[in-house]
Amino acid sequence: MPHDSATESVPTLVTVQQATNIVLSVAKRLSPVTIPLHDALWAVLAEDVVAPEPLPPFPASVKDGYAVVAADGPGEYPVVAASRAGDDSTQLHLEAGSVVYITTGGPVPEGADAVVQVEDTQIIEDGAGNGPKKIRILKSVTKGHDIRPVGFDIAQGATILKENEKIGAGEIGLLATIGVSHVKVFRRPKIAVASTGDELVEPEEGIRLGKGQIRDSNRAMLLAACKEHHGEVVDLGITRDTEADVNQLLDKALASNADILITSGGVSMGDKDFVKPLLEQRGKVYFTKVLMKPGKPLTFATLEARTRSATETRQLLVFGLPGNPVSSAATFNLFAVPAIRHLSGWVDSNLRKVQARTLVPLRLDPDRPEYHAATVNWELDDGTGHPGFVAKSNGRQVSSRLLAMRSANALLELPQAPATVPAGTLVPALLIADLAGMPTSKFPVPPKDLRAAGTRKVELPHVHLSVEPKHRHS
Amino acid sequence: MPHDSATESVPTLVTVQQATNIVLSVAKRLSPVTIPLHDALWAVLAEDVVAPEPLPPFPASVKDGYAVVAADGPGEYPVVAASRAGDDSTQLHLEAGSVVYITTGGPVPEGADAVVQVEDTQIIEDGAGNGPKKIRILKSVTKGHDIRPVGFDIAQGATILKENEKIGAGEIGLLATIGVSHVKVFRRPKIAVASTGDELVEPEEGIRLGKGQIRDSNRAMLLAACKEHHGEVVDLGITRDTEADVNQLLDKALASNADILITSGGVSMGDKDFVKPLLEQRGKVYFTKVLMKPGKPLTFATLEARTRSATETRQLLVFGLPGNPVSSAATFNLFAVPAIRHLSGWVDSNLRKVQARTLVPLRLDPDRPEYHAATVNWELDDGTGHPGFVAKSNGRQVSSRLLAMRSANALLELPQAPATVPAGTLVPALLIADLAGMPTSKFPVPPKDLRAAGTRKVELPHVHLSVEPKHRHS
Ligand SMILES: [Mg+2]
Ligand SMILES: [Mg+2]
Repeated sequence: MPHDSATESVPTLVTVQQATNIVLSVAKRLSPVTIPLHDALWAVLAEDVVAPEPLPPFPASVKDGYAVVAADGPGEYPVVAASRAGDDSTQLHLEAGSVVYITTGGPVPEGADAVVQVEDTQIIEDGAGNGPKKIRILKSVTKGHDIRPVGFDIAQGATILKENEKIGAGEIGLLATIGVSHVKVFRRPKIAVASTGDELVEPEEGIRLGKGQIRDSNRAMLLAACKEHHGEVVDLGITRDTEADVNQLLDKALASNADILITSGGVSMGDKDFVKPLLEQRGKVYFTKVLMKPGKPLTFATLEARTRSATETRQLLVFGLPGNPVSSAATFNLFAVPAIRHLSGWVDSNLRKVQARTLVPLRLDPDRPEYHAATVNWELDDGTGHPGFVAKSNGRQVSSRLLAMRSANALLELPQAPATVPAGTLVPALLIADLAGMPTSKFPVPPKDLRAAGTRKVELPHVHLSVEPKHRHS
Repeated sequence: MPHDSATESVPTLVTVQQATNIVLSVAKRLSPVTIPLHDALWAVLAEDVVAPEPLPPFPASVKDGYAVVAADGPGEYPVVAASRAGDDSTQLHLEAGSVVYITTGGPVPEGADAVVQVEDTQIIEDGAGNGPKKIRILKSVTKGHDIRPVGFDIAQGATILKENEKIGAGEIGLLATIGVSHVKVFRRPKIAVASTGDELVEPEEGIRLGKGQIRDSNRAMLLAACKEHHGEVVDLGITRDTEADVNQLLDKALASNADILITSGGVSMGDKDFVKPLLEQRGKVYFTKVLMKPGKPLTFATLEARTRSATETRQLLVFGLPGNPVSSAATFNLFAVPAIRHLSGWVDSNLRKVQARTLVPLRLDPDRPEYHAATVNWELDDGTGHPGFVAKSNGRQVSSRLLAMRSANALLELPQAPATVPAGTLVPALLIADLAGMPTSKFPVPPKDLRAAGTRKVELPHVHLSVEPKHRHS
C-alpha cells in the first residue's frame, strides 16, 4: 500500500504560536564555554564582567598640549619636561610657574591640575638653541580642564557587561580594554543539514539532470542560513528515500555531535517519506504540521544522543522541514532560528517584528495564516506623511517558487481570512535578514493609493485561531 | 620642538557629507572573482545569472496523491503504476479509467492532466493480495490541478538574479537550483588593522599595566567590526610612536596585499603623531579632520602599492582613525563601512537611515554635528500612538568612554545648534548593527513626556554647515 506510513501516523497540527512555544520550551540553552575573545563575536555572555582596574588607570590628558597649574593663568612659561602617552611620569612633579608638554593620553604629572591644548598656546623659544623651550599660554583654564581623572571612563569594580548580553564589536573593545582575552559565553550550536529525496542531484556544474530529477537547492540555502545565524555547520549531504538511508542520516547526525539537525523533504504524505515515521520510532515527536502558509508539513522532534562518556545523554533537536524551498525557508526562519538563538543564549529568541505598509493589495488565505516573503525598506514618508517601513511583496507565494525569497528580508504575518488587505495597510513584518542592506528609498513620491490609505485607518481583519493544542509524546 | 609636525601640516577640515563623498569617489569597487557558491554568502553578484533550464524540468506533482485524467471524475480506479519523486516516468502513459500513484515532486506521466491529493481518495483494494490496487477518487478536479507545468517556478532563459544583487541564503538557494556551483562576484576587501601608541599594551590576561599604560582596545574592536562587515582581516598589531615603526607599518600593509588599512591613534596634534605626516609624505591625503563629534581628527589617504607583476599599481585606502575608542568606532562606521561596502560592490554603500524618537532630551553641540551612540528598538506605540523606532541614548558621549558603544546599534545624527532636543523628537538614526538582535519592547506603556511630545510636532533645529570643501592633494 503506497500511503501506509502516512495513514499510520496521526499528524499533530499546531498553530505557529504553539509551535514556537513548544520549540522554545524543548530547546535548552547550551552550556557555557570559555573561548578566546577574538572568537567571541556574536556570542552571548554567560557571566557578568567586572573591571578589575579603573580606566584610565592614571589621570590622563584629553588633548595634545601642556600640563599646567590652572591658577598660573595665561603668560610665558618654561617647558620643563614632556609626558607623552606611554611615559611613566611618576617621577615628574610640576612646580607652579612651569609647564610640561603632554600628548593625548599622556599621564598628567603630579602638581599639574589642568591641560591647555596646543591650539591655545604659542611657541616663544623652541629650545633648539641653548636656552630652555618656552611657550605662551593664551587662555585661562579651570582646575581639571582636559584631564580625565582615574576611573573616568570605567570605575574600578564596575560591571561593564552583564550575563546574557550579546557580544558585538563594541563589547569586544570593552572586554579588551579591561584585559579580558578569554571570555565565558554560551556555546553556539553545531547544526547538521541534510536534504532528502530520490529526485535530488548535487547542484554542480556539468552534472546534467536526468529525467525526473531536480537540483538540491535547500541544502545550500539552509547551510548559508545557518551561517548567517552564526551556527557551526555540518553538511550531511543528500539522503535517499529509503528507511535505511534515513536511519543512517539520523545516526550520522547523532555521531557528529550536532545540537540541531535540519532536514528538508520526506515529511509529507508520500509512501517514501521516512523522516517523520523514523523520528516517531527513534525519538520524541512534538508536532508534525503547523497551520500556516507555506510549509504546513513540519516535523519537530528530539533524539537522545549518548555523550562520549556514555553516562550522560545529549539532546538533538530535529527540524524536519518541508521539501519545497519556500516552505523550507519560511519554517527555518520561524522555528529553527529562534531555536538556534535560544541554544546560543539569547534571552529573546523570537524574530523581531516591525510594522510595514504594504505597497500592493494582498489576498489573504481563508484557511491559514500566511508568512509572505517581502522586502521592507524605510521611507521618510511611507505614504501617510510619516516615516516608516514599506513592504514590497515578493510576488506569487507558491511554495516551490524560490524566487519569492530573492532579496526577501521579512515575512509579512498575514492572518487567515476570506478578504483582501488593501495597499497601504500596516501589517506585521518579521525580520529575517540584516536591514543594513535593505533597499534604499525607491518611492520618493509615495504612490497615490498609499497616500489615500494613510488617511483612512486600515485595520487587519480580526482573527480567531481554531486549532487545539495537541502535543504528542510518542 | 615638540609640536613641529603638527604645525607643519595644514589640517583639512571637511563635513561628514563631504568626507563620505570623497571616500566613495576615491574608493574603487574591486575586480570580480569567481568563487565557489558556498563561499559567496554576503558577496555581491558581478553578472546577471540566467536559468539554463526550466524549473521544474518536467510537469511535477504538487501533492502526494494520484495522477488522473481530470475528465474521469470521482469513482473507483485501478492504480496501474507509481511515479515517485526521482522516478523517470517517461515510459509511463496513463490511459483514461486508471490512475498512477504519485508523490510530491514526482513527474506527472503522459496522459495524466491533474493530480488528486491522497486526502481526497480512499483505498478500496490495497494490492497486497492477488488483485490490483484500487482506489476511490472522492473529488472532481479540473485540468492542471496540483500540477506544476514545466518552467512554472523558473522559466528557461529567465534572469533569476541581476548584477549588483547581494547574495543571501535565498539567493544561494536560487543559484543552486539552476546548477550554479561557482559564481562571479566582486572581490571583498582585505582589511589590515593596526593600533599605534607607545602607551598601548596587548589586552592579554596576566599582563599587568605599567605606569602610563593602557590596553589596546581599538584593534580588537575594529577587527571584529571588519568581520561584521564580511571583510577578510589582517592583524598588524601595535605600532610604536616612531617614524621608523609607522613607516614599517605602512610597508607591511602594502606587502600584505590589503585593500584597506585602518589605523587608530597617531593622527592628533602630538609631536609623535606620525601617521598623518607619513601618509602625506608617501601617499595622497584627502582630508585630516571631519567636522563632527566625536572623532574630529581623521586622516583619509591612499597609498599606491606595486602589484606582484610590478607593471600595475594597486590602491591602498588608509583610514587613520582617532585613538579614542568612541571616536574610532564612530568614524569607522561613518567612513570605513561605506568604503568596505563600495569595494565589495554594493550599489548603495551608505549606512541605512531610519527615524527614531529619542526617549530623553538630548543637548546638542553648538559647534559640531554629533553622532550619538544609541540603542534603537521597535515599539508598537512609540509614544505617539503609532508604531516606530525609539532611541535610547547610551549615556555620556565622551570619546574615551567605550561604554557608550555597549549594545549600540545606531548613531543618532544630531545637528549642531545651541539647543536641547526634547524627549519624543524624531531624530535620524544611522544603523550600525543588525536589528535582528535589537532589544524587544521595554516600554509597554510609553513614557508620559513622549506621549505629549507626539502630539506637538517636534522639529530638529535647522542647520547651516559652514565648512568650505578643501581637498588637499599632497
Ligand atoms: Mg521527498
Ligand atoms: Mg597616540
